[in-house]
Amino acid sequence: MADVEHPTALIADMGRRARAAARITAGLPTAAKAAGLRAAASALRAAEPAILAANARDMAAGAERGLSGALLDRLKLDAARIGGMAAGVDAVAALADPVGQTIDRAERPNGLQLARVRVPIGVIGIIYESRPNVTADAAALCVMAGNAAILRGGSEAVHSNRAIHAALVAGFAEAGLPADAVQLVPTTDRAAVGAMLAADGVIDLVVPRGGKSLVARVQAEARVPVLAHLDGINHVYVDASADPAMARAIVVNAKMRRTGICGSMETLLIDRGFGDAAALIAALREAVCEVRGDNHAAAILPGIALADDADWDTEYLDAICSVAMVAGIDQAIEHIAAHGSHHTDAIVAEDAVVAERFLAEVDSAIVLWNASTQFADGGEFGLGAEIGIATGRLHARGPVALEGLTTYKWVGRGTGQVRG
Amino acid sequence: MADVEHPTALIADMGRRARAAARITAGLPTAAKAAGLRAAASALRAAEPAILAANARDMAAGAERGLSGALLDRLKLDAARIGGMAAGVDAVAALADPVGQTIDRAERPNGLQLARVRVPIGVIGIIYESRPNVTADAAALCVMAGNAAILRGGSEAVHSNRAIHAALVAGFAEAGLPADAVQLVPTTDRAAVGAMLAADGVIDLVVPRGGKSLVARVQAEARVPVLAHLDGINHVYVDASADPAMARAIVVNAKMRRTGICGSMETLLIDRGFGDAAALIAALREAVCEVRGDNHAAAILPGIALADDADWDTEYLDAICSVAMVAGIDQAIEHIAAHGSHHTDAIVAEDAVVAERFLAEVDSAIVLWNASTQFADGGEFGLGAEIGIATGRLHARGPVALEGLTTYKWVGRGTGQVRG
Repeated sequence: MADVEHPTALIADMGRRARAAARITAGLPTAAKAAGLRAAASALRAAEPAILAANARDMAAGAERGLSGALLDRLKLDAARIGGMAAGVDAVAALADPVGQTIDRAERPNGLQLARVRVPIGVIGIIYESRPNVTADAAALCVMAGNAAILRGGSEAVHSNRAIHAALVAGFAEAGLPADAVQLVPTTDRAAVGAMLAADGVIDLVVPRGGKSLVARVQAEARVPVLAHLDGINHVYVDASADPAMARAIVVNAKMRRTGICGSMETLLIDRGFGDAAALIAALREAVCEVRGDNHAAAILPGIALADDADWDTEYLDAICSVAMVAGIDQAIEHIAAHGSHHTDAIVAEDAVVAERFLAEVDSAIVLWNASTQFADGGEFGLGAEIGIATGRLHARGPVALEGLTTYKWVGRGTGQVRG
Repeated sequence: MADVEHPTALIADMGRRARAAARITAGLPTAAKAAGLRAAASALRAAEPAILAANARDMAAGAERGLSGALLDRLKLDAARIGGMAAGVDAVAALADPVGQTIDRAERPNGLQLARVRVPIGVIGIIYESRPNVTADAAALCVMAGNAAILRGGSEAVHSNRAIHAALVAGFAEAGLPADAVQLVPTTDRAAVGAMLAADGVIDLVVPRGGKSLVARVQAEARVPVLAHLDGINHVYVDASADPAMARAIVVNAKMRRTGICGSMETLLIDRGFGDAAALIAALREAVCEVRGDNHAAAILPGIALADDADWDTEYLDAICSVAMVAGIDQAIEHIAAHGSHHTDAIVAEDAVVAERFLAEVDSAIVLWNASTQFADGGEFGLGAEIGIATGRLHARGPVALEGLTTYKWVGRGTGQVRG
């Protein structure tokens, strides 16, 4: 059994087994991976009593430890949530398989046939917090893309995660997939996270899923590549040319549809030439949003709180919005360059020239014209499930789904070519 | 002027200026970038006397420091080499521009038009050793892909690099490109390398170009993403089904065409069922290659040296080859999995089923069937110049050229869509 006393040795051992499993999953045809996932989904449904019992232990321990109501809600499983988890695994099984796709091909003058072909990345580490459904989601995405996964869930969900993991692995075994394709770190010791982050060459990619302190720790410590976002300090810029009704609809939706998601707007930038600014800010307030404005905004709508310097760099994840009045597109772009987090930024404008400048010059993973920032989501983008949203610049940006869990190799087919 | 006494502050300042320049180069049309590169190439030609004088200072200092003949040869510039450097910059100006290319697009059911569009990465750090031509090559590639570059060359080439850099920047200025698009670190203090490697968020990607100790240091220390290869422990596997004459031609070329490049073969794996093994090994020896074989190879060709355990993990970069006789494709794949460096591996076989298994199951950046490993080169792959070859799994694998110096953003164009 795994040596939970020595995290580095533990992760090295899990990594070796994951690499061996990944060599198998990498070569599986789409149908075999899909069958494995469907068997895992069935096993999840069949294990409902065991998963509920395990979850009850976690809930009791959580209540005893004084977890907040919000945390307990994230932790809680019921029949509907287990059914949703299984349906999510089935949905991943139905996605288009990126593995084996030819990205491009060429015949060289010497007759060598060259192609770039998508292949799995290898061993993916997922480090997550209280939501036990991530165990099933992440496992399904990693395996469908031909990888092996090493999962490290939060201590508060340990029993739930083990029960879900056992069901997944039982389903895989039934369908002939290697059990080591999805391994759950058998200790909740935080040193195991450190060992994963240091496991260069053992784990090929780490995806942290959870709150800001988890992501910050992963980004600060990791010696392995990380796909993640730390902040979603997203802006909507309302240009002078914006349609006032459209601007109100987009701004209220971007802020208030769900305030706690990473795609929600945190700062509203209004062109000083936009004639309907007072009504726009009033619409936010009517939606029960606290508004913190700069001096120009306060002059337009007296009585609103004044933003301080920190507001422009704050991800509220709440019904609070900072509002700055800017002198046109240039100042809007400068504000976003200075304060944004390269996640999702939107412009509302009828002037296509201004809009195209925004789309070209704002350096974010997602840029939108006349649409709400709340669309920043793999499902909304048609990718199926997402493993997360990335705001780094390399490999994958924005919603990361199956394709983002693959890489490519160069495949050359010759007839005896040698280099002159 | 830059504060060379405080490397972290120096790199932070250079990074700020690079970011500002990158925002300009990112938006330049192809023709403007190409004109800038052509002006830089002209400036290099015009600066030939100054570059030669600077190089003479480096050569004299190198001779005094007792640099080897090989190092002095790498350092040395003459009219032909300066002409070649300028021609290389002109060639990059003629490459297809990846920036602005649409990778894919889709219309969502709600009418949102989504596209993934290639954009520059941002600020690229290049850390290199004695060859001063890298100053021009790397600068041209980074700028043509819309990035800014921070170059840190070796101390032995400091005067040459400064003269080349001055010419490049003069050319850029003439063509209206920002001078800060290519900056040369003004100190050869090794602490500046450490500051670059720690400059997370300032430098987006580091590419080390040089020997193994440089690459190893960069990979070990970097807090920023790195594209590189440490080793090229490349294999040729000769299957029982191989054509003997083709096998001899490919094996001798893969090993001996140039022994010092990263794409050269280091280990030859011969199927025990291949009937022409003795002649194959003899051909290598006739080409004046030292052969170190396993027991099976020594039995076939008595008198060859026996390989020890370290040989299978050694990149000779010399006229030396380790030879193992393996029991078919499975053992060949296992050997490569255990000892390879994920760079370039080739199979010689007439049996297409065996060959396709090799191409699918060998996990290397480049896999080749019936072709020499010496083709592992951006130019040979039709990519134009390359910034390097990468053996990591993320972002770009194999030869990294203009496309590898870009990333993408999601661009959505709507008509007022809000999320339900």
